[in-house]
Parts: sequence; C-alpha cells; structure tokens
Amino acid sequence: MRTTIKDIARQTNLSITTVSLVLNNKGQKIPEETKRLIFDAVEAMNYRPNKLALSLLRKKTYTIGLIIPDISNIFFSELGKGVEDRCREDSYNMILCNSNDEFLQEKQSINILADRSVDGIVIVISAESFGVKYEECLSTIRATGIPAILADCFDKAVDFSTIAVDNHEGSRLAMRHLIELGHRKIGCITGPLGLKTNVERLNGYINTLEEFDIQFEQSLVHEGNFRYQSGYDGTVKMLAKNPTAIFCHNDMMAYGAAKALKDGGFSIPEDISVIGFDDIFFSAYMDVSLSTVKQPVYQMGRKAAELLLEEIHGSEIPKQHILFAPELKIRKSAAPPRKP
Amino acid sequence: MRTTIKDIARQTNLSITTVSLVLNNKGQKIPEETKRLIFDAVEAMNYRPNKLALSLLRKKTYTIGLIIPDISNIFFSELGKGVEDRCREDSYNMILCNSNDEFLQEKQSINILADRSVDGIVIVISAESFGVKYEECLSTIRATGIPAILADCFDKAVDFSTIAVDNHEGSRLAMRHLIELGHRKIGCITGPLGLKTNVERLNGYINTLEEFDIQFEQSLVHEGNFRYQSGYDGTVKMLAKNPTAIFCHNDMMAYGAAKALKDGGFSIPEDISVIGFDDIFFSAYMDVSLSTVKQPVYQMGRKAAELLLEEIHGSEIPKQHILFAPELKIRKSAAPPRKP
Repeated sequence: MRTTIKDIARQTNLSITTVSLVLNNKGQKIPEETKRLIFDAVEAMNYRPNKLALSLLRKKTYTIGLIIPDISNIFFSELGKGVEDRCREDSYNMILCNSNDEFLQEKQSINILADRSVDGIVIVISAESFGVKYEECLSTIRATGIPAILADCFDKAVDFSTIAVDNHEGSRLAMRHLIELGHRKIGCITGPLGLKTNVERLNGYINTLEEFDIQFEQSLVHEGNFRYQSGYDGTVKMLAKNPTAIFCHNDMMAYGAAKALKDGGFSIPEDISVIGFDDIFFSAYMDVSLSTVKQPVYQMGRKAAELLLEEIHGSEIPKQHILFAPELKIRKSAAPPRKP
Repeated sequence: MRTTIKDIARQTNLSITTVSLVLNNKGQKIPEETKRLIFDAVEAMNYRPNKLALSLLRKKTYTIGLIIPDISNIFFSELGKGVEDRCREDSYNMILCNSNDEFLQEKQSINILADRSVDGIVIVISAESFGVKYEECLSTIRATGIPAILADCFDKAVDFSTIAVDNHEGSRLAMRHLIELGHRKIGCITGPLGLKTNVERLNGYINTLEEFDIQFEQSLVHEGNFRYQSGYDGTVKMLAKNPTAIFCHNDMMAYGAAKALKDGGFSIPEDISVIGFDDIFFSAYMDVSLSTVKQPVYQMGRKAAELLLEEIHGSEIPKQHILFAPELKIRKSAAPPRKP
C-alpha cells in the first residue's frame, strides 16, 4: 500500500497537521529536530505525495494524450517518441491511444482522454476521418474544451494549430531529382486520395511535371493505400506503360515496387528508378538503398508537444500552422534512364 | 472549460444537490420531468463526470504504466500495441514511458508512474539494468507497492510475474535448421551478454552444437549490441574463420551481416547462410528474405497486460513465469553449404 501522511504521523508519533505542515513547506514554526524526524520517516517509508489529490486541487494532471493510428507503425512510433521526450522535459506524461485508423475508436479515445482530465491532446487524425468525419472529429475535440494540436496535418482553415511536413515540396524534390536525371515517363503510386496530405503529394507530382513541360498521363498514376502490397500491385499494373522511374508516396510502397520490379526481372536503378517518401529507418539498409524524401518525424513530434505545452501554459496563443521542410535523401535507387 | 455539476445546476435552475442525486442514480424521489431537464442539459453541455475525483474516491485510476527502452524500436512498439489493445478491452489506459535503456531514467519512470497512482506497471527492464542495478530496479518497484509484470524477461527467482519468449529454444530451432542443412562451421553474433535473455540465446547455440557433437569454437562467437553496425562488424571479423552460416541474435544484426557479406562479394544463401531472431516486419521484405526465429511479441504484450489486470483485480494471485514458444520462419537466407 502507498504510504500516506497518516502513516508518517503514526510512525513519528506526531499529529497529521504537523506532518502536513512540514511536507507542504509551511512548518516555519516547527522545531528542526521534529522536521528531521519527519523527513527521515518520509525517506524510510518511501512516502510520495498523492499527485492525484494535487491534480484535483489544481485542476491540472500534467498528463497529455496522444492519439495515433497505430503505434506499431514505425512512422508513428517515431513521432510518439518525439512527443514523449518533449513532454518529459516539462514533467508531463503521455497517455497513448491507438485509433487503428478508425473514426469511432478515435472519437472514443478523445472522450476517454477528456474523462481522464488530460491537460492537452496531440492527435494524428485517422485515415477514416475525412470529409464529414473530419469535421465531427474536430467538433468532438472542441466539445471537451481541451487544447489540442493536429499533427501530420496542415490545415489553415481550422481553429487548431497544425503541424506537418511540406508534402507538396517533398514531391517536388523527388520529381525534380528524377527529371534532372533525365526521366520523362515517371509513374506515381499515391496514398488514399481522401486525405489532404496525399492530395498534396499528388499535386506536387503534377505541378512538377507542368513546370518541366512534361505531359501528365493519368495511366501513370495508381492510387495505393500506403501498404507494401499496393506498391507491388501498382507497379505490376504500371509496367505495361513502360515508365523509366516510379515515385511511391511512402517507403513501404517503394519496397513493394522494388520487389515487383525484381520479380519482373528489372534491375534498380539500371532498368527502372524508384524513389520513396518518409525515410523510415529500413530504407537505408535495403539491398539497393532507397532514395527518398525524409520527413523529420521525431522533430515534428517534439514540436507538436511544444506547441501543446505553450497552449496549456499560456491562455491566448494564436494558432500556428507549421510546415517542416522535407529533405531529399539521395541513395542508390535512382539513376539516369537507360539510353533507348 | 469542462462542464461541472454546478454548470448543470445553474443552467437548469436546480440545486446542485438535486443534480448530483440524479446523476449518481440516487434520484428515485425526484420527478421524471426534472430528471429529463437535467439529462437534456447534460447532453447539450457535454457534461462528463470527473474521473479524477472518482479515482481519488475509489483509489483506482484505471491507468497502467508501460516502461520500455524505446518506442521507436519496432519490437517494443509492437509489444506496446499488444499491451494497449488488451488494456482498452478492460477500459484501462496506458501511460507510456521510454527509459532510453538507461537505468536512471527507468527508476525515475517508476517513481513518476507511482506519483500518478497508476494501478499497475508493465516494464521491460533496460539494457543497463543488470546485476546490482536489476535488483535496485526491482526494489524501486516493490517500494511503490504497485503490481508489476516484467515483460521480455524470464526469471523464476523474482517475486514478480515474468513473461518472455523461450530464448534457449529459439536458438535451438535456428541452429537445428542450419545443422540439418549441413552446416558445421556456424558463426554466432550475440546481444550484450550482461542480459540473461542474451545468455540464454548463446546457451541455446552452444548446447545445440553439443547435441550434434560439433566442436564449439570461441572465435566463431562475436558479442554484438543488437545494432545493425555490430552485425556488420562481427561478420567482417568472422569471415577470416570461414563460417558457412551466421546466426545473428536479432534481425537488425542479420541485416548488417547480410550487407557485410554482400560488400565482401558473398551471395546469400549460396556462399553463406544467415539466420536471425525476432522476425521484425522488414525481414520478410528483404532482397533475400530473412529466415529467422519469430517472437510472438504482440501476443506477449497482450499477455503481460492480462497478467497485470488479473493482479490488479484479484488480491492473491500466484506469480507466473510464462514462456512463449518461438517459431522458426524459413524464408530464403539459409540453404545447404557449398560442397567443398
């Protein structure tokens, strides 16, 4: 059982009032030797104040909630680490909730965190929550009255601070690299196009083609779902169109693309170049290491926590919409196209 | 701001007592229409009871703590997912703490979780906490009086329930596979040998050699640190001894080994076989997919949470020491040795 002030009083033969005064730094009139007695008992009995009671009194729990689609996804676990590390610096703890990318579980998580009286929430909106569900998710957060930051989301239209990588610019970096290597027929495997983030990446693809006067071909675009298999399938489908390079909108799909190319007897990058997006840690270790667009995801997690802590501490902070700069990581999977 | 009972009373022009009675199911004598009024206000104003006050009253927070070395390590994030999923089924939440594999941060995390009055703790002891520090870590947990489960740890000597994969058996599975393929000169790259888990894996290696009357050679064993680079370096060092197969005690080191072999001009598995331990999700997607020993880590996380919840609910449950069976995943990285 937890040691209470009562136990300390019993042990030292002092009154609860005396012990309480000393432990709350209000024991100026109490003799030093009595204090010593109390502090010795505190140490011997491993007494620690009940933070729960303090929380109720101060209406603060020093706890924030993090809602993410899936902690076993390496992108979100890295983000979560950034959030936790930054919170710890200010003595905040983090309750973790997985939404499994489901709208209902996400809504439930918001309410659970509100019930737990968290001081703030960092949320990565689930893939299911676009359109009307996105609005409903935001309303649910608003109704709790708890400060919240939308991470991995950039939306100037909302009354929350948002933070994301510059997805449009990320796509441009990848596309410029391929085009400068000499590619003109570039396939593109996107994420689910219900999400703004993914549309931004697609727009980056289309706009860079325009910028270089390259004809956009619908048949070179395949809508994937960020999973390995959809990179594989999209690549198989696309091979009939003879692309010289494939730009996958995340690394997992790029791994699938690489496997499909290998199974089809193509070499990377000699026959076909591949480029990804995210730079999850395995990409550097692939057989042909993957050129990709790095998201500074750990820093994004830290920044999300920092914005949240500012909102928790200050009263009237203007909402911010922060874009992190992506970075092109040139490795071995993209090279000039074969001469025809 | 959170809606309180006071707000409901003000809104409905009723007394706080009346509202409180109705919301606590003690309003038998209160007219139905008054109740209706209150419930309507509750809905309109999104009133939710203050779980914090309830927690203080019931001395239960329905929150558990999870302490792991690093959530951005895919092994621990999968474990964490298992813990969170199982907790959610019983309406428990999970506070996540990273120890960064450091003894001091681990000790601090235990005390922070105690301060937050968590109902229980699942902990993966940090790599730094062996020997005296292991004992000190356990004492710190004991001093909190909070039920705890040691995950990814098997230790019958402690007064906590422990749960792990059968590491000795996992090594035997990998070694029997290699030996049955015809290998006799098998290199071994271990994790840090301060940890019991890793010694168990090494013992599995040594004992299987004995079982097949194969001479143990110290020079074929390299102590690594579970990181990619140590797999690479260990392999480079070992090549002078001409092993026909290399058994790495986790998959990350196996990726390093594979790269070192490739850089040295060796083919996997034609020239040298490689086998790993863990089965993290990339292993299936490598250029030569990795044969490895699978740990059912998600299930281990769920089971750890389940044991903990049992301890939280029941008073006198005997401690359990559970070993999960490892499973050999035969993929493409191990084959018979070349004929001399």
